[in-house]
Amino acid sequence: MTKITAHDLAKKQKEISVAEFFERNKHILGFGNATRALITSIKEGVDNALDSCEEVNVLPDIYVEVKNHEDGECKIIIEDNGPGIVKKQIPHIFGRLLYGSRFHAIRQSRGQQGIGISAVVLYGQLTTGKHAKVISKVEEDRPAVILELVIDTNRNRAEVLNRNTVHWDKPSGTRIEISIIADYKRGKRFVYDYLQSTSIVNPHAQITYKDAEGTVHFFERTTETLPRKAVEIKPHPYGVELGTLIKMAKHTKARKLSSFLKTEFSSMGDRTTKTACEKAGLDRNINPKEMSREDFLALHKAFKKVKIMAPSNDCLSPIGETLIRRSLKHETEEISPEFIITASRPSSVYSGNPFQIEVGLVYGGNLPKDRSVKIMRFANRVPLLYQQGGCIITSAISSIDWRRYGMDQPSGKGIPTGPAIFLTHISSTQIPFTSESKEAIADIPEIENEIKLAFRECARKVQKHIHKKVRRKKTREKFDLITKILPEIAKKSAHMLDKPVPSLDAVITKIMDVVWIEDVITYEKVDRVIQTTLIEPVEEKQQGVITKSKIMVVNYKRTPQKFNLYALIPEDAVIGAVEPKPSKITSNYIKWGLGTIQPANKIDVNFELAGLGQGDFDENDLYIENINPTYVIGADKWEGD
Amino acid sequence: MTKITAHDLAKKQKEISVAEFFERNKHILGFGNATRALITSIKEGVDNALDSCEEVNVLPDIYVEVKNHEDGECKIIIEDNGPGIVKKQIPHIFGRLLYGSRFHAIRQSRGQQGIGISAVVLYGQLTTGKHAKVISKVEEDRPAVILELVIDTNRNRAEVLNRNTVHWDKPSGTRIEISIIADYKRGKRFVYDYLQSTSIVNPHAQITYKDAEGTVHFFERTTETLPRKAVEIKPHPYGVELGTLIKMAKHTKARKLSSFLKTEFSSMGDRTTKTACEKAGLDRNINPKEMSREDFLALHKAFKKVKIMAPSNDCLSPIGETLIRRSLKHETEEISPEFIITASRPSSVYSGNPFQIEVGLVYGGNLPKDRSVKIMRFANRVPLLYQQGGCIITSAISSIDWRRYGMDQPSGKGIPTGPAIFLTHISSTQIPFTSESKEAIADIPEIENEIKLAFRECARKVQKHIHKKVRRKKTREKFDLITKILPEIAKKSAHMLDKPVPSLDAVITKIMDVVWIEDVITYEKVDRVIQTTLIEPVEEKQQGVITKSKIMVVNYKRTPQKFNLYALIPEDAVIGAVEPKPSKITSNYIKWGLGTIQPANKIDVNFELAGLGQGDFDENDLYIENINPTYVIGADKWEGD
Repeated sequence: MTKITAHDLAKKQKEISVAEFFERNKHILGFGNATRALITSIKEGVDNALDSCEEVNVLPDIYVEVKNHEDGECKIIIEDNGPGIVKKQIPHIFGRLLYGSRFHAIRQSRGQQGIGISAVVLYGQLTTGKHAKVISKVEEDRPAVILELVIDTNRNRAEVLNRNTVHWDKPSGTRIEISIIADYKRGKRFVYDYLQSTSIVNPHAQITYKDAEGTVHFFERTTETLPRKAVEIKPHPYGVELGTLIKMAKHTKARKLSSFLKTEFSSMGDRTTKTACEKAGLDRNINPKEMSREDFLALHKAFKKVKIMAPSNDCLSPIGETLIRRSLKHETEEISPEFIITASRPSSVYSGNPFQIEVGLVYGGNLPKDRSVKIMRFANRVPLLYQQGGCIITSAISSIDWRRYGMDQPSGKGIPTGPAIFLTHISSTQIPFTSESKEAIADIPEIENEIKLAFRECARKVQKHIHKKVRRKKTREKFDLITKILPEIAKKSAHMLDKPVPSLDAVITKIMDVVWIEDVITYEKVDRVIQTTLIEPVEEKQQGVITKSKIMVVNYKRTPQKFNLYALIPEDAVIGAVEPKPSKITSNYIKWGLGTIQPANKIDVNFELAGLGQGDFDENDLYIENINPTYVIGADKWEGD
Repeated sequence: MTKITAHDLAKKQKEISVAEFFERNKHILGFGNATRALITSIKEGVDNALDSCEEVNVLPDIYVEVKNHEDGECKIIIEDNGPGIVKKQIPHIFGRLLYGSRFHAIRQSRGQQGIGISAVVLYGQLTTGKHAKVISKVEEDRPAVILELVIDTNRNRAEVLNRNTVHWDKPSGTRIEISIIADYKRGKRFVYDYLQSTSIVNPHAQITYKDAEGTVHFFERTTETLPRKAVEIKPHPYGVELGTLIKMAKHTKARKLSSFLKTEFSSMGDRTTKTACEKAGLDRNINPKEMSREDFLALHKAFKKVKIMAPSNDCLSPIGETLIRRSLKHETEEISPEFIITASRPSSVYSGNPFQIEVGLVYGGNLPKDRSVKIMRFANRVPLLYQQGGCIITSAISSIDWRRYGMDQPSGKGIPTGPAIFLTHISSTQIPFTSESKEAIADIPEIENEIKLAFRECARKVQKHIHKKVRRKKTREKFDLITKILPEIAKKSAHMLDKPVPSLDAVITKIMDVVWIEDVITYEKVDRVIQTTLIEPVEEKQQGVITKSKIMVVNYKRTPQKFNLYALIPEDAVIGAVEPKPSKITSNYIKWGLGTIQPANKIDVNFELAGLGQGDFDENDLYIENINPTYVIGADKWEGD
């Protein structure tokens, strides 16, 4: 055998184009098999469509169509009413991997990698040999452009094969048509599921889906309010890596360390900057370009020693507890679960990236009791359908000892068994996906911890809920007994003695010895006028819902009672009529200083909420103050704002 | 709010450098947290070292060192005795992502992506701001070069900061030193585990590991034979995507379709080429550059209709059943399991990439009975430590109904519970990892299917094994009873009657009525002379082991018996002395045509095996022919070659 040397090997060493890399590793991008390829292609298209509409504050109106040809070839069409894409950028956005506008911005968005849609184009040409077609219109009074392109994988650049203008009856927007090899028969159920889930967590979007059989499905817009727009922020000192710090200093325009810190980082004011420099033993006026590695190391260490405000969470756009409830309700419509619980954590930070965890838990009803709980995962409002086993959400849930909360879990580890659905949403400026296919979240300890905290909070609420229910049920049994049997006895006795039936209020009160609080929620359909924020604003009449809450407070104690009552209000609700007059209204609650209630007397407390869907608010969360909470059934002790 | 247009958005759109992308997404490369970063760094270094030695047919001699500095900084040193790297290539290999020699070759190797080691350099500079140091020597009589470099992430190119020559007392090799932030305390156990597992499946490698406490661990070389070198092959027509076919035709030097097919694909001979062209309705003499998309489509479809030989598996280098047994034995040394079973599938193909599955199963002993079975995963001789939940190996195992094979598995799905270890090795020219961190395998249906087939085969062997054991045990009890009690009775009776003790052979035979086959394995240490294939070949004496198998065949039937006996031989074994003379020896078995055995007589069959370690072969797998298998205890029916 001839000896092989380093020189021989050197001849084989060469650059790998990023497009070539993903062509070979298409499963990394979510195209591992023909079913998944279908979902991934639609997902990337819809993600982009939603992002681009939101970027220009337009309510998304998305059209999705799948045509199923013979030989497993599908044509995917996705159209939006976003701003369109300028002609020069089309070949880059669709014909080049690692190109985009959202990668360099620290702000929550669906697409962040600059890979997704060009990967679909790549997969399409790889499997069908066909070009992708893009139509884009950027200005109302000019025609749309139509382009056909393929990706030259050796160079990772688009090759435009056809360029033309075309009339398009739309003020602006983008339409893509890509042919791919896909398994429509197996995949169609998932496409529907994906679009439905997407619609639920993006209620401001309208999605029209025409399936390959020609059936059109509407996923209607249920709110005209765009989600809070995520604001772009600067990196936070806590999360910045030493190497990134050095790189930033190399490229900064600032001539002084202090201005470098204040202009290039978030949460760095005069005082924190001063303290950080002092702790690092650095002159604030030093030119950052002249700092040594040791200087940067000292600064990097000093960051950890200074208390720096968490980054603003303006850059995040969480789903909100109401929407999570609604999503879970929708998911469980035919199941009539016992209760739905949600928990929302304050925003937190990993490696300088703000993130926030929201979770929801559905329990009971017709859900199967002997199977693993169903796990639903969302990231930046995008449902995650695959790779559940490799996701930190799953491991976080598995690491909790659910037996303590009354669920089955062999050996106290793993996904618990029981009639429940666990939903998790993570929003972040940078979702740490385990791969470019964006299906599972990597095991970042900070994220795992927040998910666990959120679910523990849920689990405690579940326990409290059950406890409250049990207590109320017991008291009600007692109450029913008293109010049915006592009057019977009294009537019989009075009749036997030929005396008038006595008033039993005092007796009942004496036996019950509680303040009883009970609520009823009703919904009233109303017409409301809304103004869409579409390009041409129009006023529209829509059917809305007013949620009416009636709370009955009865004093079954032997002494007069006077206390404060609090009712929690969902964040998205608008408070309407309130009766009696409250002593305080905040965005989170209504507070009443109830007047003295005499024994056996009652007070009705009513309020109305707008801005919610039917069933979004179906039970009051009530708290009391200035009264011994053990006297009260139906409300808990107020623990302060 | 001012209206944002497509033109505004266009300003933000820009290219993302691949280095920038991975800097931001370092968890995708396996650097998600400080523990994992340590393992990943060492793994990438060792993978490269092994690959480069094997590439030039040198027995690897790898040195690994970890120095743990304060503040969580570790210095990783990895040194090999491979061919070194020519000076010009060093900056590319270590300072550029997506650069390498193995990506474009269809052949089994550890590194395939051209990302691994430069990712470690990137992570190092990102977290410590320090340069990577590379020493390389390519020729014995010239000095080594030493380079310090960083990666300019905006350009994805190395920046060389220091270049020098240095004396290095080694014929050739590469040494890298990279400082990274890592959690040594938590990670050190995994480093040891990883190196140990690596050593087990790479018995031709010697690994010296100096840990941060200064302790030196030797993982000794246990074989001087390099694994079969994987040969580079051409793509197979079955797996090639339409787009790739078109691209290949665009770049081919062939002027005729027939020569294009014969020179650029594997398994395409004259006849298959002719048939494929006919089925596609294409002229064999057409110039491939002049073919239309429809022509390619027809050809692509024709491929599926023609019977084309599977690609040669020369490009694969499986571990082999012996090594898998040894690996499992090593893993279970202190557990003394009941048995170890292995199964090896023939090579198969997914998307044109040949792959092969080997599995092993350990059962019983002190393994915990109430926990999930332990799953060990290997890909191209590299242990996979993370992302078990997201790996197709795990889902394939989980999808088998293990209850049918006597294991616990709630609801017949999921990882079974029981005292077992399941090992899987996949070798392939292209391992479809779910991400660049190479920790889990994507869900490719063909691969899942092969894993399931392999484990089902194992499970059946387990059942057979148990059945054989039970049958032998029952017969032995009967035998013990007869051979102990009958002679006692005979002796007593003879004594009472004052007659000589009669021969009981005929009686025992009558009662037993079986052919009894039993084996004993012993090992004998011997000195052997081996010749290393190191750069300077030397002859060395080493302690070897001869495995001696003694098989006893006793005829307890009432009639003379004459039949054939087969003993299976592990693929790596070298057959030595065999007694009596066999009628056939192949690489898989020895066959004896046993002479007539009279009732109550026995025959001893002996053979010796070299080339195995002690304990590699600890039980015979015996088969019989030309005799009713129900007569025989200790061997099964021979089912043919």
